[in-house]
Amino acid sequence: MKKRTISQTAEPSPQAFQSKLFSNIDQTQFPCIAQLNTNIDVEPAYQSVVTGYKTFKYSKPFYVRENDGVLPEVTVAYETYGELNEQKNNAVLLQGGLSASSHARSHPDNEEPGWWEKFIGPGRALDTDKYFIICTNNIGSCYGSTGPSSINPITNDHYATSFPIITIQDMVNAQFLLLDHLGIEKLHAAVGSSLGGMLSLASAAFHPERVGRLVSISSCMRSHPSSIAMRYLQRKAIVTDPNWQQGRYYNTDKYPKLGTKLAREIATLTYRSGPEWDQRFNRRKIDENAKPSLCPYFQIESYLDHQGELFSTKLDPNSLLYISRAMDLFDLSEPFGTMKKALARIQIPVMVIGVQTDILFPCWQQKELADCLQDAGNQGVSYYELNSLYGHDTFLLDLNGVGAGVKGFIETDNSEKGRVVKGRNDHNRDRMSF
Amino acid sequence: MKKRTISQTAEPSPQAFQSKLFSNIDQTQFPCIAQLNTNIDVEPAYQSVVTGYKTFKYSKPFYVRENDGVLPEVTVAYETYGELNEQKNNAVLLQGGLSASSHARSHPDNEEPGWWEKFIGPGRALDTDKYFIICTNNIGSCYGSTGPSSINPITNDHYATSFPIITIQDMVNAQFLLLDHLGIEKLHAAVGSSLGGMLSLASAAFHPERVGRLVSISSCMRSHPSSIAMRYLQRKAIVTDPNWQQGRYYNTDKYPKLGTKLAREIATLTYRSGPEWDQRFNRRKIDENAKPSLCPYFQIESYLDHQGELFSTKLDPNSLLYISRAMDLFDLSEPFGTMKKALARIQIPVMVIGVQTDILFPCWQQKELADCLQDAGNQGVSYYELNSLYGHDTFLLDLNGVGAGVKGFIETDNSEKGRVVKGRNDHNRDRMSF
Repeated sequence: MKKRTISQTAEPSPQAFQSKLFSNIDQTQFPCIAQLNTNIDVEPAYQSVVTGYKTFKYSKPFYVRENDGVLPEVTVAYETYGELNEQKNNAVLLQGGLSASSHARSHPDNEEPGWWEKFIGPGRALDTDKYFIICTNNIGSCYGSTGPSSINPITNDHYATSFPIITIQDMVNAQFLLLDHLGIEKLHAAVGSSLGGMLSLASAAFHPERVGRLVSISSCMRSHPSSIAMRYLQRKAIVTDPNWQQGRYYNTDKYPKLGTKLAREIATLTYRSGPEWDQRFNRRKIDENAKPSLCPYFQIESYLDHQGELFSTKLDPNSLLYISRAMDLFDLSEPFGTMKKALARIQIPVMVIGVQTDILFPCWQQKELADCLQDAGNQGVSYYELNSLYGHDTFLLDLNGVGAGVKGFIETDNSEKGRVVKGRNDHNRDRMSF
Repeated sequence: MKKRTISQTAEPSPQAFQSKLFSNIDQTQFPCIAQLNTNIDVEPAYQSVVTGYKTFKYSKPFYVRENDGVLPEVTVAYETYGELNEQKNNAVLLQGGLSASSHARSHPDNEEPGWWEKFIGPGRALDTDKYFIICTNNIGSCYGSTGPSSINPITNDHYATSFPIITIQDMVNAQFLLLDHLGIEKLHAAVGSSLGGMLSLASAAFHPERVGRLVSISSCMRSHPSSIAMRYLQRKAIVTDPNWQQGRYYNTDKYPKLGTKLAREIATLTYRSGPEWDQRFNRRKIDENAKPSLCPYFQIESYLDHQGELFSTKLDPNSLLYISRAMDLFDLSEPFGTMKKALARIQIPVMVIGVQTDILFPCWQQKELADCLQDAGNQGVSYYELNSLYGHDTFLLDLNGVGAGVKGFIETDNSEKGRVVKGRNDHNRDRMSF
């Protein structure tokens, strides 16, 4: 057999060889790692989101569902857009995702764009000329509502991980205490996406007489193990950061930045989609002239790193842990015995919106929700499946697709039932056959 | 408006209240975290996989593709099953995934089950009565082949992160040096899954005259950004572990166990599938009587934790970094100018197998590979799409689906071309119409 050489060339001198080998060492220094080890003593950005929202303080004990937990008081931060009419029947509760503040749209007291900026306003999906939009910061969070970073009035210290485990039901209860305070008996609609969709479903199931219609976007009726897995990995990234200190980092000079950053990078994987990244980054390098190393080399890597960095101080890591766990615990069937019993409580018009590229709350879960609502007797369920590339984040980005569905659904006069009556349908068909 | 109470009950006494609050603190101790902080000084299990394989040592400089890198020598660990025939034309190269050793099947020198145990043997998918199966440990790994944990003969110290960046092409080159050594001019087949499928494709493209047929299972012709993203997160988990020490942990008493464990937990998410977990775990709790906390509570969480724990010392973390990066860098078009030119070199029979639940190497990438091979003129491409629940790991688990396809493809007598000739087809149709 002929000896083959497999692209191996002649040997260099031992000296040249050694120097080549050691040049490898230079190539594998890690500027990306050196950077990582700085900036641990940070002023978390979430602490500075302190302007422009209103607060409602409930000064009595607030009991939570699990573990006999109780908070001595609870504060709900909220913002409103549009005007509440005299009958107080034009309120729309916008329910936000894991990291959402009450700041859904800019206003004179806080001119920063909100997280649903383009969906809210005169003539927009949530029309402020017609509706009074209320958006709260969920309890457990850190933007004005009571959460782990809040001061426990009994100990005068941050709750940290002495904060009780909370659930979707507890978040809804806090929101409805606010509605009581505002004198709103019945919502025109509850609109929520992701965690917010769980809140909307729970609102309608726990308070069927107080919700007029319901929009659930990229949500589910119970958390499935794959979404629990994705959140678990994020929590693990935080709690294995030594700076987390079992959650008691508030009064120390160390903040679990790296763990929180990695958590957000993992989350970003679950929020977007491969097809989007194929289109947006493909295999492009950060620097066309760079040599490959163990440090970020492809644009997709620097994108994830950047997303992680941006977010790493924007949400209190303990808030992420608690709210993320609340999402895991969500199973609408639990308080009612069976899912059918739970969903049978929701006989109002419902719009379910899913996205084909969503890997966190996949389309089949949206379809499942719509189907089960119908099985439980609801004849007013609309199901929209979007082909957006943006995965789970579509609800933040797809103004046309998501916005149109929501607007049409919210504004339709339901005094005529949505289904075409058989007789009329026949009549139309007759006319069309001429 | 009637005042509603939202499931809030009467206030307890301040004393009872305080004690309740403090009982929360007890609930949120973290046994799961306390556990995490132990066992850092471990004897990594990968070091003890030292028996039962053969080694081939190439004692000349081994040049790698990127960064003018070079290794002063290279060792390839390998195992073989069955007998090489006299013509030396019955060899099948089995090419393994990221963490695969050469131990694909048990044998007298190592009776532990191998990673493709049930696929290899008399009468099995890779039939040892007919074929001489060769399985190597890829370079960059840690099971006998040269990798970052190997001793650099020039410095007499572990390479660690002075190990050069390696590519799929380099791994293939090392494998073909072994084939030279064994006197094997041409393989009957190259069979690979995942990373191994990249190796098989590269083998056929770089050495078209030396590969008789090719099986690619759950692989791709170039790494896509979503799979780069999933690997990037694993690498990040390792390099942010302070015990990683820029990769120079070999002679210290610290090992990056927590980072490697988290990396494997992230990897597990990409190896399996949501539908499998729905079936296997659903929302079952670890302990039906446990109260929810921030520690693992659902079975899916302990499953991931367990997978991470098992693997955390089984593959050298630096090997994971280097091989994972090699996978990112894989783009078969690069050495040949365009993908069409690269694939046009592969005119042998090819079987492409994909799995519908695979999120790491999704089905559309398998279809893309099969289509592009056909577009490049290959008329012998078979494409199988499996509906297995096991996601990317299907190649390790689905003995029936994967095994049958591979066996049939490997053993078919190709002296008759695979396509039914038009004339015969017409004849058959005529007969059938009687």
